[in-house]
Amino acid sequence: MFAVIFKAQIAQIDDEYFKTASRMQELAMGQYGCKDFVSVTEGDNEISISYWENMEQISAWKRNPEHMIAQEMGKTKWYASYSVEIADIVYSNNEK
Amino acid sequence: MFAVIFKAQIAQIDDEYFKTASRMQELAMGQYGCKDFVSVTEGDNEISISYWENMEQISAWKRNPEHMIAQEMGKTKWYASYSVEIADIVYSNNEK
Repeated sequence: MFAVIFKAQIAQIDDEYFKTASRMQELAMGQYGCKDFVSVTEGDNEISISYWENMEQISAWKRNPEHMIAQEMGKTKWYASYSVEIADIVYSNNEK
Repeated sequence: MFAVIFKAQIAQIDDEYFKTASRMQELAMGQYGCKDFVSVTEGDNEISISYWENMEQISAWKRNPEHMIAQEMGKTKWYASYSVEIADIVYSNNEK
């Protein structure tokens, strides 16, 4: 399983941001094989993590046309800065 | 580089929680080779990610006596549930 770790400093978010976030989650999970998605925002700091079975799914999702528009909106409008990390999960433990 | 992804549902946090969190970050980064640490809490949801050069550092940190006490406090008091994932970062991109 792979995790895509998205960390961002929010510049300015609006209704479109929330609509887009919801739509992207629906698309990624419904059509691109995304297994799970978690997102936490505190003040201007956002961390979102999506989970995938393989890198091919992640690459395909990155190239989805609606997602590409959303990425562009993120870069130019919603986020002051962000980073993306892709990580291969080597250990997982759900406790308690 | 490895990421330790800690996700938790908070049950009840107190002053001790914040003191402990601060102390653990200081110890992990100062004495165990932790390279970076980010933590975001929204309502009852917490995501914290720490970054390490290798698995040996992560194992050593897990066994630190103060950290073991903190882990126990987390299990029995502060968190309703939590999960830990260790992931090998295969791609990283800081944009904008």
